Amino acid sequence: MTPSSRYLSLIVQGLEDSTPFTGPEAIERAQRRAFKARLGANENGFGPSPHAITAMQQAAVENWKYGDPDNAELIQAIAHHHKVPAENIVIGEGIDGLLGLALKAIIDPGDMVVTSNGTYPTFNGHVACHAGRLSMVNYRDDKEDLQALSDQAKRQQAKVVYVTNPDNPMGSTWSADDLKSFTQTLPSHTVLFLDEAYCELAPPGTVPPLDPQNPRVLRFRTFSKAYALAGARVGYVIAHKILVKAINKVRNQYGINRVGQIGALAALKDQTYLSNVTAKIIDARERLAHIALENDLQPLVSGANFVTMDCRQDGAFAKRVLSELLKRDVFIRMPTVAPLDRCIRVSTGPKQDLDIFQEALPEALKAARK
Amino acid sequence: MTPSSRYLSLIVQGLEDSTPFTGPEAIERAQRRAFKARLGANENGFGPSPHAITAMQQAAVENWKYGDPDNAELIQAIAHHHKVPAENIVIGEGIDGLLGLALKAIIDPGDMVVTSNGTYPTFNGHVACHAGRLSMVNYRDDKEDLQALSDQAKRQQAKVVYVTNPDNPMGSTWSADDLKSFTQTLPSHTVLFLDEAYCELAPPGTVPPLDPQNPRVLRFRTFSKAYALAGARVGYVIAHKILVKAINKVRNQYGINRVGQIGALAALKDQTYLSNVTAKIIDARERLAHIALENDLQPLVSGANFVTMDCRQDGAFAKRVLSELLKRDVFIRMPTVAPLDRCIRVSTGPKQDLDIFQEALPEALKAARK
Repeated sequence: MTPSSRYLSLIVQGLEDSTPFTGPEAIERAQRRAFKARLGANENGFGPSPHAITAMQQAAVENWKYGDPDNAELIQAIAHHHKVPAENIVIGEGIDGLLGLALKAIIDPGDMVVTSNGTYPTFNGHVACHAGRLSMVNYRDDKEDLQALSDQAKRQQAKVVYVTNPDNPMGSTWSADDLKSFTQTLPSHTVLFLDEAYCELAPPGTVPPLDPQNPRVLRFRTFSKAYALAGARVGYVIAHKILVKAINKVRNQYGINRVGQIGALAALKDQTYLSNVTAKIIDARERLAHIALENDLQPLVSGANFVTMDCRQDGAFAKRVLSELLKRDVFIRMPTVAPLDRCIRVSTGPKQDLDIFQEALPEALKAARK
Repeated sequence: MTPSSRYLSLIVQGLEDSTPFTGPEAIERAQRRAFKARLGANENGFGPSPHAITAMQQAAVENWKYGDPDNAELIQAIAHHHKVPAENIVIGEGIDGLLGLALKAIIDPGDMVVTSNGTYPTFNGHVACHAGRLSMVNYRDDKEDLQALSDQAKRQQAKVVYVTNPDNPMGSTWSADDLKSFTQTLPSHTVLFLDEAYCELAPPGTVPPLDPQNPRVLRFRTFSKAYALAGARVGYVIAHKILVKAINKVRNQYGINRVGQIGALAALKDQTYLSNVTAKIIDARERLAHIALENDLQPLVSGANFVTMDCRQDGAFAKRVLSELLKRDVFIRMPTVAPLDRCIRVSTGPKQDLDIFQEALPEALKAARK
């Protein structure tokens, strides 16, 4: 312990010094040049609704005002959109922020939390921050293994189980019916965190009906993906009012930026644009699958805004492919846990970005095979 | 306990259902009309630098990108501005967010925290969220009582003591020398949270020199007040690198919105604008003091962007004055704890807003005296 560490809390003294994701800007700083194609963070390069852009530009002038701490207008609009009561919605700084707040509201130190080995690492960081104990279940056939998650929740008397649907980083989906059955098999003391960051892009039949009367399921949504407002940091949870009230007690009341509030509201209201962008993302997903096949990689079926490509070798090889793409100024990412790490993960994006990826991939593969 | 409460953590089950501040929007919704003058939240109605506005408007188009999770460019600029190393700076979602993160990094459940009875209530909420024990010291002559705070920190073996300078809600200041002496009297196990939200507006000699080598002082700063970017939710802490590292471990890596990052950077670079706005705020402070005197209220000397006015009666009277001003569409706030609550607190702002306040105050006082 360094002399200054004695001022730190016991939890923080025990935390590892790791960040879930290196930002593309950090790589750009290290490479001393900008990426030509930004296809690594599952952003939506088609951009937000023009109405949202205009609204945010107008809001910039009045950014001397705090945003409404109640997020009332945005909550009303979300409630109307999903046909659920406003009391079942809480806004947070993206799903990232909300995962931490929901854990704070639900787990005590030492409580068991079950997740899949290789899915969203930010969640694991939050569990550590709240002194939860993490129990990992392996993927099965590149999908989160609902049966194993349920078994583990029972075995470990888990307080929380985390599922992403569509899954990140594999893009796989479970049907609404499968998830409904899964929820019913969970022990009565277990709360399901259902992370649906990509749900607007999933095939029909993927998203279970909302049921905010059920105190054992929290639905995590975001404006970062389909709505193309990753920079705005606005996500929301749909849940039982007891859970919403609990999250409201622990959140930063003034945590949401005003431009983001206004941008999210305008984006939500422009469902025509959302439909158009969704169609573009699905087209880009198909094109990415073709590019993969052209290069003898196996594209996995994706319900999200990215395509995960099996490089048909081990993690070391996929890592070389990724590294060669970064060198060629194409930002992508890859799963970090075996056997998922035999893949690279490429976000959808506009034609020009996919052109750049298409040109760089054969060279990167060639270099990686050397 | 309702049937659903059993899913909540013990800490959250014990938290009261209170919010530190009602937003002006909630009052507007209740009154069913907009305020004519927004002078309650210590915002800066003179608005941000035009360069910051332009930068934010340009950034809106690219708000599909996540902000840099390292906040690297902004941190570099802050480091350069304050002439401290970048490793001593961490960015958060306003001082509100950073107070919670810093407590998370430093206190264990049951640790004692000392603050002044009547100062920033958001801090107290964070202490409760982290299961700290709060010990309150009374103000003395409308100032935070440094001697009593230090004595209490010793008596209670406090892990943290919280001081705002300039103080909110009274606007009083301690000199840099007084604060330096105070810091030296604190027990060796106590860390000082020095909240300097308003420091750019304080008279010369108020702000102690930065000393990030000292692991026992955290300096909290914000772009919400002098820089007029309350809506952006960007604050920072200057502290020992061990503390910065600790806060980095527990913060939401993607918590800062991209438009806010870019706006704060542009605002920081426009120090000419900052000087001009500071002069306007000081003028407005003087005008508010005159308005108070005209109405037989006693303006307190302020080092911040508001003037607290002693209504020379009890809390019930000041509350009536406030209520009558709200009815007349003038948003102000007031201290909540006796004897500070004999005052109302009025933020500085542009001429037209102060005109509206000046017109409404005599009527409000008349109505309150009835």
